[in-house]
Amino acid sequence: MPKKQKQIALQDLQRLTRRIPFNHLVGIRVVRRHRDGVTLECAVRDDLRNWAGVLHGGVTAAIADVAVGVAITNHFHRKRRATTTELKINYFLPIRDGKIIARSHLIRIGKTLVVGRVDLFDSEKRLAGAALVTYMLL
Amino acid sequence: MPKKQKQIALQDLQRLTRRIPFNHLVGIRVVRRHRDGVTLECAVRDDLRNWAGVLHGGVTAAIADVAVGVAITNHFHRKRRATTTELKINYFLPIRDGKIIARSHLIRIGKTLVVGRVDLFDSEKRLAGAALVTYMLL
Amino acid sequence: MPKKQKQIALQDLQRLTRRIPFNHLVGIRVVRRHRDGVTLECAVRDDLRNWAGVLHGGVTAAIADVAVGVAITNHFHRKRRATTTELKINYFLPIRDGKIIARSHLIRIGKTLVVGRVDLFDSEKRLAGAALVTYMLL
Amino acid sequence: MPKKQKQIALQDLQRLTRRIPFNHLVGIRVVRRHRDGVTLECAVRDDLRNWAGVLHGGVTAAIADVAVGVAITNHFHRKRRATTTELKINYFLPIRDGKIIARSHLIRIGKTLVVGRVDLFDSEKRLAGAALVTYMLL
Repeated sequence: MPKKQKQIALQDLQRLTRRIPFNHLVGIRVVRRHRDGVTLECAVRDDLRNWAGVLHGGVTAAIADVAVGVAITNHFHRKRRATTTELKINYFLPIRDGKIIARSHLIRIGKTLVVGRVDLFDSEKRLAGAALVTYMLL
Repeated sequence: MPKKQKQIALQDLQRLTRRIPFNHLVGIRVVRRHRDGVTLECAVRDDLRNWAGVLHGGVTAAIADVAVGVAITNHFHRKRRATTTELKINYFLPIRDGKIIARSHLIRIGKTLVVGRVDLFDSEKRLAGAALVTYMLL
Repeated sequence: MPKKQKQIALQDLQRLTRRIPFNHLVGIRVVRRHRDGVTLECAVRDDLRNWAGVLHGGVTAAIADVAVGVAITNHFHRKRRATTTELKINYFLPIRDGKIIARSHLIRIGKTLVVGRVDLFDSEKRLAGAALVTYMLL
Repeated sequence: MPKKQKQIALQDLQRLTRRIPFNHLVGIRVVRRHRDGVTLECAVRDDLRNWAGVLHGGVTAAIADVAVGVAITNHFHRKRRATTTELKINYFLPIRDGKIIARSHLIRIGKTLVVGRVDLFDSEKRLAGAALVTYMLL
């Protein structure tokens, strides 16, 4: 009897993501798995703000990066490692309170490169940014 | 007698940058002013690492973003505010220890948009990444 | 009696797009209007190929750029002019024959900047690339 | 006696570049080789213009792409083939007349990916744009 391909559980993704020191520092956590990606969230805290009192663009870039990394871990059932080769992000709206939500979609899974698109939302589900992130499989 | 255009001092840039909560959290600090930009540094700390034990890509994106923001503050002698509209970063080398150094160059100062190029180095001055960052003047 | 907001007809968009010299040279044409963007096509011709005999990346970048420009013309009923400030494109698959199809979505319409996302397909509707394009309203 | 590593001649680069159909159509030509890249030029012709009568952004993206491709051919003495995986370009100034000049610098030569930075100038040597382009070695 063929063994069923073992999927990675949401809890495992959450644990793996939280165990990464910088994700833990910033408070990035996995909230959902999708067929083509994942949804992450990060609460706006005072120490994540910029001079204008809104979420720092570096946090938004970080969560976009992580959203594609976790989607790759999910897609390959944790069997492949990958590293970010480049990231492009557009910022649309300042995020003042609540949380930022990052929904990644893997749009290209090549032999060497994987590309993800990320939609970034504020607590009211308004599109606050968009990103394209490339990872190289190791 | 015409008043001399007052430049912003390195100490002021350092104080302003450190006062930004997320910069403080990550440990981003200004080390030098240049005619066309600034040099920032950030020490690699354990809580800034990713799963591979190297500096998290989100930290690198954050310091690139900040390097252009501080260059704008420097250029306009603190008289204009600006917000990041988009950022593109390429990662070349993992940064394992020591520090990351970000040197920004303002390459386009328009009426509305300012674009900076950022070269990112590791402690051995090897090019570890490159970025293009656009800010909109407010 | 209030005058109805006059939409721009598909034929007008097609005529305007074709009248742009470089679009005409490359053979970029509008095939559909959508609520949030447009669909363009460009047939693969021998003089649009690169050294490998596939569609040149410059053509793909051009059609992505135009797809957002035409979407803006459509959105503002031809009342606003805009100019590209930056463009990011990822290439997934070579396009050997048939045509390239570009579907743009305006994802951010600000007072100054408009951002479009573009999905690029080959004749078999495989995703051949993805782009993010920013225009500034004039 | 060890055979001297044979460099590719400027004339060979020029011939190879011109032989690529789309480069020929647009009129992109190599004018100089440098230690870390090449300089290309393209004359502004009426059929390369956009609605505003200036050089079409697609031409600028194309010459940026080619400038890195030719730099790779030059660097590897024509021994390696490569394909564009992603391109990011910022536009600063419209180019109305004369020519566009693209100067590429290879800033990262990895085992799999090569990244080039491109500075784009108008005939008066004003910086008209900047690009980062990634190629994958085949």
